[in-house]
Amino acid sequence: MTARRLDGKAIALQIRAEITEQVGQFVAAGHAPPKLAAILVGDDPASQVYVRNKERACQKAGIESLLDRMPVDTTQEQLLGRIAELNADPSVSGILVQLPLPSKDQGGAGLDERAVLDAVDPGKDVDAFSPVNVGLLMQGRPRFLPCTPHGIIQLLHRCDIETSGKHVVVVGRSDIVGKPMAMMLAQKDGSCGPRTANATVTLAHSRTANLTEVCRSADILIAAVGRPEMIRGDMIREGAVVIDVGINRVGDRLVGDVAFEEAEAVASATTPVPGGVGPLTIAMLLHNTLMAAKWQAEA
Amino acid sequence: MTARRLDGKAIALQIRAEITEQVGQFVAAGHAPPKLAAILVGDDPASQVYVRNKERACQKAGIESLLDRMPVDTTQEQLLGRIAELNADPSVSGILVQLPLPSKDQGGAGLDERAVLDAVDPGKDVDAFSPVNVGLLMQGRPRFLPCTPHGIIQLLHRCDIETSGKHVVVVGRSDIVGKPMAMMLAQKDGSCGPRTANATVTLAHSRTANLTEVCRSADILIAAVGRPEMIRGDMIREGAVVIDVGINRVGDRLVGDVAFEEAEAVASATTPVPGGVGPLTIAMLLHNTLMAAKWQAEA
Repeated sequence: MTARRLDGKAIALQIRAEITEQVGQFVAAGHAPPKLAAILVGDDPASQVYVRNKERACQKAGIESLLDRMPVDTTQEQLLGRIAELNADPSVSGILVQLPLPSKDQGGAGLDERAVLDAVDPGKDVDAFSPVNVGLLMQGRPRFLPCTPHGIIQLLHRCDIETSGKHVVVVGRSDIVGKPMAMMLAQKDGSCGPRTANATVTLAHSRTANLTEVCRSADILIAAVGRPEMIRGDMIREGAVVIDVGINRVGDRLVGDVAFEEAEAVASATTPVPGGVGPLTIAMLLHNTLMAAKWQAEA
Repeated sequence: MTARRLDGKAIALQIRAEITEQVGQFVAAGHAPPKLAAILVGDDPASQVYVRNKERACQKAGIESLLDRMPVDTTQEQLLGRIAELNADPSVSGILVQLPLPSKDQGGAGLDERAVLDAVDPGKDVDAFSPVNVGLLMQGRPRFLPCTPHGIIQLLHRCDIETSGKHVVVVGRSDIVGKPMAMMLAQKDGSCGPRTANATVTLAHSRTANLTEVCRSADILIAAVGRPEMIRGDMIREGAVVIDVGINRVGDRLVGDVAFEEAEAVASATTPVPGGVGPLTIAMLLHNTLMAAKWQAEA
């Protein structure tokens, strides 16, 4: 069996085309274009690439983008001050703070990441990191859906992969991916997006005993641990769907959390790295920025 | 094998004695006693019993209690007005709205339960129902721990039942029990109370395919579905720990979600109904009320 390859890149382009059309309609109705403000503290090369990709994606969709570069030694007070200005600026629809913030070793001022993220107005919190947005999601009445889990939901949906009644194993319990992914899929009524109804969900992690056995019980296996090729072929049930969220740099290669060739020989469907989940994350960020602009226009 | 019976009642009494002592110390330090305000709309008999039990438990612990009885036809505006008064009253440490609110059939005014709960000041939200408190919990930095899941955590801890590395299956995905229970146990660092580190957690429910098989994979099985004796002996792995959260009225008997005698023949430990998880819920409500009073005194 060679697994079907789930083409995240193509689906992301399709979603971005839809968003571009919706942005056009929004502007045609007399509103200012949505605007995404990104704050980048310091000059980490990977962060620069991410931020530039987000900027470019915004521009293509007709969303304005504002890149706020702040020096590596920016203080907590300066950063919170900048966030407060963006919160108060009615032309800004959404705000993201590019992570990671510089550590002290990197010349950073010892920023408190949690306090920084908490300072973003929940109505502009397009990453869905603020506690009120996380709580609303868990309660099945989300405002913003977190970008990576929402991208996976869209991928499953648009590839017509059923989740209802299926056993989904999520490996990795980060606040950004694993925990919200588990909560979204376990809802009873589809309240967190298409296909978010009636999955049975196991949240596993690097400390899970018998991880192989747990993973093999999955109809859909979602790997989000950040360890290169940790999920091997023998951890995958024949015919399972495997979603790889990992993007790990190994030498000059990018590899996922899944040993791709081994997975492809066993699974019924897999996502490549790169070109799988990654492009969807950016597409859903654009979606959230448009949603924010619409809600602000209605308010 | 006859399972060890986990005596929730005795442990609740022990916790309540500890809280009574802490309340005494708090008052001896010159603070006003903690005060719990309960709002009861209408005269549902079961709700009256619950509220009276909570009042009595408060009194025994040295916590003041205020029972606010409102007529069955109370309007949304009246109820929100009363909550706003309690939010603003510095003598009130914690607020709970007894659920369920009366339905229209029962003479109710068509109250919006969600909006009512959302109106409680998150700093006085001793039930931990408000989205910001739910989000903080999921992110592993809780303010209030929800009472029933916290009671279960305390039960496991004080009975010296290990959760780290274990597979916990939670059956039932309510906002009050199942979802927060799953999230608390899956934390990586014990941030949601003792024993909340490194469990592998499956959130199952009435729509789970192969529920028997899923339940049988549990080292610790937590039943919170609200269906009398739904969990049968053959759904329990030999030697598993079974926690029964259900309290269902069947004729004139109270039965749990677990067929108790069948479970007792297979499990290594079980909780009785009544006298298992129920008493712990009230104990943890007292705990939250004291915590609220302490935080307010520090603020």
